[in-house]
Amino acid sequence: MRAVDIIADKRDGKELTGEELGFLIGGYTAGQIPDYQISAWAMAVFFRGMTSAETAALTRVMLGSGAVIDLSGIPGPFIDKHSTGGVGDKTSLILAPLAAALGIRDPMMSGRALGHTGGTLDKLESIPGFRTNLSVGEFRSILAKDGFAMTGQTREVVPADRLLYALRDVTGTVESIPLITASILAKKAAEGAEGLVFDVKYGSGAFMKEASQGEKLARSLADTGAAMGRRIIALLTGMDEPLGNMVGNFLEVEESLDCLEGAGVRGRPGPEDLMEVTLELGARMAVLGGKAKDAAGGRALCEDCIAGGRPRELFLRNVKSQGGDPVKLLELRGNWRSPVGAEIRVPPGAGESAKNGVSGAPLYIRRIDAWKVGNAAVALGVGRNRTEDPVSPTAGIQFHRKRGAPVKAGDPVMTVWSATEEGLAAALPRLEAAVEYGAEPPSPQKLVLKEITAGPAAAGPDASTGPAEGGR
Amino acid sequence: MRAVDIIADKRDGKELTGEELGFLIGGYTAGQIPDYQISAWAMAVFFRGMTSAETAALTRVMLGSGAVIDLSGIPGPFIDKHSTGGVGDKTSLILAPLAAALGIRDPMMSGRALGHTGGTLDKLESIPGFRTNLSVGEFRSILAKDGFAMTGQTREVVPADRLLYALRDVTGTVESIPLITASILAKKAAEGAEGLVFDVKYGSGAFMKEASQGEKLARSLADTGAAMGRRIIALLTGMDEPLGNMVGNFLEVEESLDCLEGAGVRGRPGPEDLMEVTLELGARMAVLGGKAKDAAGGRALCEDCIAGGRPRELFLRNVKSQGGDPVKLLELRGNWRSPVGAEIRVPPGAGESAKNGVSGAPLYIRRIDAWKVGNAAVALGVGRNRTEDPVSPTAGIQFHRKRGAPVKAGDPVMTVWSATEEGLAAALPRLEAAVEYGAEPPSPQKLVLKEITAGPAAAGPDASTGPAEGGR
Repeated sequence: MRAVDIIADKRDGKELTGEELGFLIGGYTAGQIPDYQISAWAMAVFFRGMTSAETAALTRVMLGSGAVIDLSGIPGPFIDKHSTGGVGDKTSLILAPLAAALGIRDPMMSGRALGHTGGTLDKLESIPGFRTNLSVGEFRSILAKDGFAMTGQTREVVPADRLLYALRDVTGTVESIPLITASILAKKAAEGAEGLVFDVKYGSGAFMKEASQGEKLARSLADTGAAMGRRIIALLTGMDEPLGNMVGNFLEVEESLDCLEGAGVRGRPGPEDLMEVTLELGARMAVLGGKAKDAAGGRALCEDCIAGGRPRELFLRNVKSQGGDPVKLLELRGNWRSPVGAEIRVPPGAGESAKNGVSGAPLYIRRIDAWKVGNAAVALGVGRNRTEDPVSPTAGIQFHRKRGAPVKAGDPVMTVWSATEEGLAAALPRLEAAVEYGAEPPSPQKLVLKEITAGPAAAGPDASTGPAEGGR
Repeated sequence: MRAVDIIADKRDGKELTGEELGFLIGGYTAGQIPDYQISAWAMAVFFRGMTSAETAALTRVMLGSGAVIDLSGIPGPFIDKHSTGGVGDKTSLILAPLAAALGIRDPMMSGRALGHTGGTLDKLESIPGFRTNLSVGEFRSILAKDGFAMTGQTREVVPADRLLYALRDVTGTVESIPLITASILAKKAAEGAEGLVFDVKYGSGAFMKEASQGEKLARSLADTGAAMGRRIIALLTGMDEPLGNMVGNFLEVEESLDCLEGAGVRGRPGPEDLMEVTLELGARMAVLGGKAKDAAGGRALCEDCIAGGRPRELFLRNVKSQGGDPVKLLELRGNWRSPVGAEIRVPPGAGESAKNGVSGAPLYIRRIDAWKVGNAAVALGVGRNRTEDPVSPTAGIQFHRKRGAPVKAGDPVMTVWSATEEGLAAALPRLEAAVEYGAEPPSPQKLVLKEITAGPAAAGPDASTGPAEGGR
């Protein structure tokens, strides 16, 4: 077997076997196949794609490159949710304790912020003391005790993915659906999840700009996950605008807590768009975990569960389990902000052209562009352009008005906090440019565009072998 | 400028600028851009192709990566012929002295045998003493004196090509028309040729199996050469069967000498197929060199010139100039063969199925497959699979009968000489399988399928500033 022949076969559109992919990727991980052959192969995959069987074989090869978290002895069901990344997307922080409260265990391994998208680990680490570098033993025991554990990918898990991703990042081969699929699924399979809910985002703030591309990825994740024996539900959700009213690390922890408290503690639910996506995802976790027959039932279960307060309790318990200080978290809430700040208001001339010169005509926010917000957030210190850059816990953006809000000149649209003066100066014009005004309100948006399922039939509500952590 | 952005642009089908290509290839040659980025870019080029302007820009960048042979002070015109490689293709050995005899200088830098195709340097080196590692000074002085010089590519010339070709060879990116074009043209531009005749081969024994692919390469070479300010004529010629009756290093030198002696010395011309291709190529060199108005005139000039004996004289003179021994060459001629040999005859049952059991029905050789012959020749020791392997001067194949010959069982088809017993054992079944028999003679073949020209108009016959080496 020669690497060059395998590359040429892929280049010519042939389906590679698991043995060939093992030779290539296994050899690469072992340092026997050079990176210049792998990057040429990855570019050929970009152009030729992969069959479902091929993508599944690649996923298995990558999974087999390292260790798998052993969850034996801990009762399931183990269901996780994975998002392809967006701006203001903090659903993981809400869903893990929610699922746990429903009797589902969520073994969550997450990533960091990169580029314009936020990262769950950075958000969690903004909680004073919170550790995301759990050992496998800690991960197991916290998962068993709290019903969920949240950690970063350990070095032992899918080493092929770290190597391959770093290479793809510098060779223009990130944007390949089968390579993305194998990267995500190998990591998710390694953490031990039996069922997976994918939140595949599309729109300006997502990796996939077009719904059609997002749907292809969702289909690929569902089919490949099914071929790996996992039950999969993928939702295709909009990411043209930031999700929720907060973008920032500690700001998003606060908003997650708001959502977990909901009507029960605060008397009002979390932001409508954020709750919509969270509940739809939670409903699917409930279905995959055998806690509900269908999505409608799962959603009702989630709503009641949040109202009962148990998810909030579990969240704070987990903060403590992972080294954080829940008392300090609650104390800092609402006050802990970067000292450099500014307010963005509706400018005097906003939407003039749309109003056709009719003074006093109504004015609406038609859109707040997620891509521009995400990029501005990096400048503020929320995210990073290079993996080695630090992030600020307290920088970020709070939206006072969002899409569809009727506004007039002078109304506050957002408050902005920055780690540095330079960051603020860079971010403000981008944020101002992110808001689009118009004389007509925007048409209603449908956040969940499509549902794609695959895999063995979900267990019925009675099949649960989950912990006693009760929803209802 | 970042390499990854340039790769992504090419991947997305954009035309790269000379500046971007210079950044990439110049950086690679200087060791600043890693090979894994170049191989990904090369694979993107394989899929996306390049515009003529882009291919010309890449050629210039590659040319600029090293030194250019300075031919100033030597009168021109400088015209070279380049073949894309085949089996039994020894036209270079005939054309260089022929062109010189016409008053054209041929600064010929050639390559070695690789895979199933032969190499001009290996053939020349089979002449005892012949040196193909001329210094630039030697190259210049021999070119000035003999009207042609034949050497290998020096390390100073187009270093980017050596690096890039080695990388393409192991990453499945050899088969890209713009990359092939830039590789060939950069080397040809570096040797100082003003006009170039390309022999683009197609068929089983060629790099391009299909005529349509060969035509694309011919068109790309012509257009890019023209964009570089060279006058270009490309002929698309068949390489489904070996060219001439000899395949082997010294064997091909002998056959070249046969062709150069032609009717004048031997009383009969060289093999018909070989002479056809040689004269058609020579005719175009005459046109580009301003020695003939058109191809018909050029061909007549070449025929008369060979009959006059001057090209043979120049060939033997050049052998001496390049360190070889012309007396020894003529002594060895016809006798110097590897000791291990065999004869292949028409087997008793040949073509039985085609004859429908009619005993005594006529039988013809329908085809001798060049690919199979070329591969058998490597086993015999004529060629090599790896650049570092040695070749045998005296191994090879002589065809006694070729395509279209009427035959009967027991007629000799070829004599085979091998460097080793193992090589012979490996080659014989391949050679037997290369001969196809049938009850009908094959349809007549047209060796020169197409002519493609580009570049500034050729100078007229009176514009010659060439040396006095006279055709007529």
